[in-house]
Amino acid sequence: MTTAKPLRVGMVGYAFMGAAHSHAWRTAPRFFDLPLQPQLTAVAGRNADGVRGAADKLGWESVETDWRRLIERDDIDLIDICTPGNTHAEIAIAALEAGKHVLCEKPLANSVEEAERMTLAAETAAKHGVFSMCGFSYRRTPALALAKRFVEQGRLGEIRHVRAQYLQDWLSDANAPMTWRLDKSKSGSGSLGDIGAHSIDAAQWVTGRNISGVSAILETFVRERPLAGDLVGLGGHGDLSSDAPRGTVTVDDAAIFSAKFDGGPIGVFEATRYALGRKNAMRLEVNGTKGSLAFDFEEMNVLSFYDAAESPDAGFRRIFVTEPEHPYVGNWWPTGHGLGYEHGFTHQVVDLVTAIGEGRQPEPSFGDALQVQRVLAAVESSAANSSQWQKV
Amino acid sequence: MTTAKPLRVGMVGYAFMGAAHSHAWRTAPRFFDLPLQPQLTAVAGRNADGVRGAADKLGWESVETDWRRLIERDDIDLIDICTPGNTHAEIAIAALEAGKHVLCEKPLANSVEEAERMTLAAETAAKHGVFSMCGFSYRRTPALALAKRFVEQGRLGEIRHVRAQYLQDWLSDANAPMTWRLDKSKSGSGSLGDIGAHSIDAAQWVTGRNISGVSAILETFVRERPLAGDLVGLGGHGDLSSDAPRGTVTVDDAAIFSAKFDGGPIGVFEATRYALGRKNAMRLEVNGTKGSLAFDFEEMNVLSFYDAAESPDAGFRRIFVTEPEHPYVGNWWPTGHGLGYEHGFTHQVVDLVTAIGEGRQPEPSFGDALQVQRVLAAVESSAANSSQWQKV
Amino acid sequence: MTTAKPLRVGMVGYAFMGAAHSHAWRTAPRFFDLPLQPQLTAVAGRNADGVRGAADKLGWESVETDWRRLIERDDIDLIDICTPGNTHAEIAIAALEAGKHVLCEKPLANSVEEAERMTLAAETAAKHGVFSMCGFSYRRTPALALAKRFVEQGRLGEIRHVRAQYLQDWLSDANAPMTWRLDKSKSGSGSLGDIGAHSIDAAQWVTGRNISGVSAILETFVRERPLAGDLVGLGGHGDLSSDAPRGTVTVDDAAIFSAKFDGGPIGVFEATRYALGRKNAMRLEVNGTKGSLAFDFEEMNVLSFYDAAESPDAGFRRIFVTEPEHPYVGNWWPTGHGLGYEHGFTHQVVDLVTAIGEGRQPEPSFGDALQVQRVLAAVESSAANSSQWQKV
Amino acid sequence: MTTAKPLRVGMVGYAFMGAAHSHAWRTAPRFFDLPLQPQLTAVAGRNADGVRGAADKLGWESVETDWRRLIERDDIDLIDICTPGNTHAEIAIAALEAGKHVLCEKPLANSVEEAERMTLAAETAAKHGVFSMCGFSYRRTPALALAKRFVEQGRLGEIRHVRAQYLQDWLSDANAPMTWRLDKSKSGSGSLGDIGAHSIDAAQWVTGRNISGVSAILETFVRERPLAGDLVGLGGHGDLSSDAPRGTVTVDDAAIFSAKFDGGPIGVFEATRYALGRKNAMRLEVNGTKGSLAFDFEEMNVLSFYDAAESPDAGFRRIFVTEPEHPYVGNWWPTGHGLGYEHGFTHQVVDLVTAIGEGRQPEPSFGDALQVQRVLAAVESSAANSSQWQKV
Repeated sequence: MTTAKPLRVGMVGYAFMGAAHSHAWRTAPRFFDLPLQPQLTAVAGRNADGVRGAADKLGWESVETDWRRLIERDDIDLIDICTPGNTHAEIAIAALEAGKHVLCEKPLANSVEEAERMTLAAETAAKHGVFSMCGFSYRRTPALALAKRFVEQGRLGEIRHVRAQYLQDWLSDANAPMTWRLDKSKSGSGSLGDIGAHSIDAAQWVTGRNISGVSAILETFVRERPLAGDLVGLGGHGDLSSDAPRGTVTVDDAAIFSAKFDGGPIGVFEATRYALGRKNAMRLEVNGTKGSLAFDFEEMNVLSFYDAAESPDAGFRRIFVTEPEHPYVGNWWPTGHGLGYEHGFTHQVVDLVTAIGEGRQPEPSFGDALQVQRVLAAVESSAANSSQWQKV
Repeated sequence: MTTAKPLRVGMVGYAFMGAAHSHAWRTAPRFFDLPLQPQLTAVAGRNADGVRGAADKLGWESVETDWRRLIERDDIDLIDICTPGNTHAEIAIAALEAGKHVLCEKPLANSVEEAERMTLAAETAAKHGVFSMCGFSYRRTPALALAKRFVEQGRLGEIRHVRAQYLQDWLSDANAPMTWRLDKSKSGSGSLGDIGAHSIDAAQWVTGRNISGVSAILETFVRERPLAGDLVGLGGHGDLSSDAPRGTVTVDDAAIFSAKFDGGPIGVFEATRYALGRKNAMRLEVNGTKGSLAFDFEEMNVLSFYDAAESPDAGFRRIFVTEPEHPYVGNWWPTGHGLGYEHGFTHQVVDLVTAIGEGRQPEPSFGDALQVQRVLAAVESSAANSSQWQKV
Repeated sequence: MTTAKPLRVGMVGYAFMGAAHSHAWRTAPRFFDLPLQPQLTAVAGRNADGVRGAADKLGWESVETDWRRLIERDDIDLIDICTPGNTHAEIAIAALEAGKHVLCEKPLANSVEEAERMTLAAETAAKHGVFSMCGFSYRRTPALALAKRFVEQGRLGEIRHVRAQYLQDWLSDANAPMTWRLDKSKSGSGSLGDIGAHSIDAAQWVTGRNISGVSAILETFVRERPLAGDLVGLGGHGDLSSDAPRGTVTVDDAAIFSAKFDGGPIGVFEATRYALGRKNAMRLEVNGTKGSLAFDFEEMNVLSFYDAAESPDAGFRRIFVTEPEHPYVGNWWPTGHGLGYEHGFTHQVVDLVTAIGEGRQPEPSFGDALQVQRVLAAVESSAANSSQWQKV
Repeated sequence: MTTAKPLRVGMVGYAFMGAAHSHAWRTAPRFFDLPLQPQLTAVAGRNADGVRGAADKLGWESVETDWRRLIERDDIDLIDICTPGNTHAEIAIAALEAGKHVLCEKPLANSVEEAERMTLAAETAAKHGVFSMCGFSYRRTPALALAKRFVEQGRLGEIRHVRAQYLQDWLSDANAPMTWRLDKSKSGSGSLGDIGAHSIDAAQWVTGRNISGVSAILETFVRERPLAGDLVGLGGHGDLSSDAPRGTVTVDDAAIFSAKFDGGPIGVFEATRYALGRKNAMRLEVNGTKGSLAFDFEEMNVLSFYDAAESPDAGFRRIFVTEPEHPYVGNWWPTGHGLGYEHGFTHQVVDLVTAIGEGRQPEPSFGDALQVQRVLAAVESSAANSSQWQKV
């Protein structure tokens, strides 16, 4: 570990995602052999006290109050973007042009146009050995990575059905406070881009097929929320005093769309933060001619697999994805000792650093994320046009 | 039991549904106190030997080879229609006009026009105390009846989301033989009408709200199938010899649609016979502002209920719907001794006979079933029109 | 069906078990081809009005108020004993000696001595073509029958572990009323014989190995209960008025024992009616060198199977035991349409009538049931002797 | 964080447990506010190269090849013992006598006598503000901590039943190699002490009641194993070449015992590494007069709770233990984002450091662990004495 060349990281933002990324940067080299040694060199945030406290807590060596300073610093090799979507394009493009590798949280951008510019910048930079990746961290869940492996091995045969749900409930309370996630100018969209984007990426990645068209509806159940209140986790409790100001929700609360994939499969997607009782039910089911797979992030260490060849004694097999042969798992604990949410971020760092160290493009590239962005745009276009079928 | 006035039944058709209905007519009075005593008076079928054998096996006292004869007979009070959808309108209308009560399998008809005529006949007959019901038997599953009770009691609050899946896999094998279920002239539609209709009825009934509009896609994965073969259950093994003739599938294999319900809830529906590994997964989930419900017919004795008032220790509660207080259950076994598929048909008989005995309209009426038919038609219309939103 | 020779049944008792048996006698010939045609000829009970009402409701042609009359009647071929255990020996032996076949509810008797006499009578009668069977109906659950098939096929390898639980909760309420099930003079024992006997029989039958020794504890949590009250299902609500008399519980409320099986496997058993929330959790898990099986009657249509050969992608496979190839299932509904509690009794009739029709000994014989009785006795002996190991 | 006084840790051993503890020491201060700042000062191991590599990988500042040196060093405040059980007493007593706090892995010792001496040393040291804790880390699983909270709140009423299983399968392969865990001189016992000890501690802790007596059997299925081979995780693949030497297994492979708890509850325990398909199924179910709890570590973020007051609509409620109000959880991720195996160790550090910082005895104390040791000894004594009841 000590002899590896350093990879000096500068992170922008230090909220939920910042904490997860910090843990990953600290932890990855403790469990995996990496070609480069990550260093938590600097974190940037506009609030000087806030960023100082975060640096202490999360283990960053220095702070900046302007992300541009991170990019100017010579002692930073990689920019890790953990801010809302409206800032991604500017930061990422500046970083790439400055020769810094980039890890950018998802969704890649708030518009296809931004994503296209980012992809162009990424492809240009890659020619000079400067790489970028979009943070679709669910790809690094061992069970989903095993799902992809099964599809690639042909164990599902020809794929016919995809059903993807991402169900949360932290907005069910109509009085939970406004957040940047409900402000279209910052977040780009609501459930669609925040969680639906994960489903889209996972569905395309696991099946190895792109979505070619969609028909969609979007719904906003609660159109005004208290501007102040106690934000706990992603939800919380708004200020309901009679004169407390309320803000306007400008994004979708829920998105439903049907889809067709290249080559024939059809899919159905749903993303919502109002499915009371579902906390982080990122679910994916794929049915093929030979087998089926089912996954639910609320049981993240399990992949269910149905092998039709076992008929008439076939049944969904609950694979506890904790064997040393399973993706990422061998570097952790003995069989049966499950992983948690943050491991996806640690694995993301492992894959990113390994690719950079080996001089090759990490996945998902900005181009891969642009395809997701195009699906998001098609969904919004269809929804705005009486659900008419919209090509991606 | 012995003193109750008889209700003399004539059944048309004796295949899958005929066997289920026969068991129900035989069994209902053994476990429930009915105001009328069902008698299995006659069964009709075109094949004389077939219907004779079925009558012996299923317990019918006499046979007819023409359903018209059943209607002419004075000793028949009720016509039970268990034939494919293309025959429903003619039989049901003739029976009603002859003053016979009618139980008609679902979907009510193969077109809205037929369903409208049937409904008119039903409403006219009802004025003279002649009643009719459509066989949406899943309403009689105790867990779904309990779900409706919870909604009516306000335990879900205001409903926001409905997600309904009906997943089977008996057509996954591309070489399973043709059946009348794949012939639009007989069945009207494929997965949509056969199983999707159950989901539509259950969703509307449980929530107490009608669907007002849809956007849909339909897909046919396998367009030709062997005309001969070994039909086992609903699927089976086709004749694959090189010169075996093949027939054309003229219905949908899968249907996906989004929906809006009166009063605001949105829904997503999927029906397919290609979800490998899902055998009879008729699933319904409803999310409200106070609680949520989830049901899967593959665990038909369980209703999952989430009560937000129990937060932060809330969780989906797995109610084993076998308590004497639960719908229908008190007449069966002690707590914890689950029921099976056919009990829905027995309960259907109980509800039908009770309503007739009490001189009131049973539910679902033909009018209720007409509403389902209109949703089916809207789905087909949207699918044929680039998924454009279609009002019901 | 109509040409088969009749098998004229006389049933003793008409409570919970009587209703289940009646349904089975009525239903078996409707779904299965039997070599003999069961007829519900007569039912016996001491209360003239009660037995008359039961006969009408359950479909019996005639009644007797003394079981001895049933045995004397020439028009009875088989005696079906559905009374408490203290009556089994007398009725069964008299019936066998009178040349009547016998179906006797479990546990076979209230003592090993009685069971031995019954077995002797059964073996003597069998030489003359008069057969008997003990009603361990769980053997007829398709999932458990499939479990036995898997063991016989060697899919588990050498068996090492058995864990069997039978958990109910209908006595959790300390004020539920007394019943004959809590009176040792009638029931022989409590949870041990009532439900533990099922576990013992199932464990021995599925594994094909007898229990050779045990170490046990028995516990009675509630020693007095109201003598009057409202019995609902198996539990209910006692009369708690201050002067209401209370009776003494003379049986175990819970039994726990470890066991060794012939040939090496070890087992752990628990039976209780105080496992709050478990309604009819008759569970069996078997671990071998090649595979494992798990079953829970609360999901009676499912068998979980783990096949180590699939490692590292092995996992418990949830077999939905509703395929036509599965035991008993092909005679019922299409794949995915589950069965209920009472089907076990119908299958029991099928197996019994088929064996009698073919002139061979049905299983489980009284000798098989005697082995269960010996285990029950060994458990009681160990518990009475400081849990010291007790050979069976 | 930076202003807190340091707590300088010296760890002995660096295998499975060492890696888990190191991660915990590194991570705890990043997510929790601690009164003392842990420093990974030194790690000790006999193999100089091995310990050097481990220190680099796991993040320790210095190394020692003799644990006695750790104790001598002035710059060490706490000794963390991660070695096999036969070494615990000597190290722990020496450390305590030297004024170092001690965290000692479980089981506390290999005999009651050792555990008694350790407890005496701990109690003496505590008088001088030097504290010790035994590493029953499952207590720090949020779901189990919530279970204890429910019992303390009276939500279960009076407890009647405890059933505890700890099922693994890594020894199912009879050719997996010998390890120190199968050598009684190092490990003390087999499944009993390694995993059964966790069940015993959890059962006593959650219920708040000690076990007062047991009846037990122990079994060793495989008595010889290859001495060499490829150890993967806890199992692996032995060297099966014909002349490869084999070693003798001197511990139990499986342990089964019944138990009585102070105040009336009865329990049943099973620990095995031969339950094929069960990977880390540490399960605990508790039934009381008002409610029941069920937990399985294979779904470690879930606690199932049955509340009889909800009858007849009661059911086991699947609490996803990821709410900010749940033990430990608020310091991690938003609702619905589950934790993994290693979090228990991080929480253990949090509780230990907090107690030391506040000058109070952490739990479980050596005295608590001594009680577990006494149960282990009683189990072995009963098993050696024909399962005769053995007081603890």
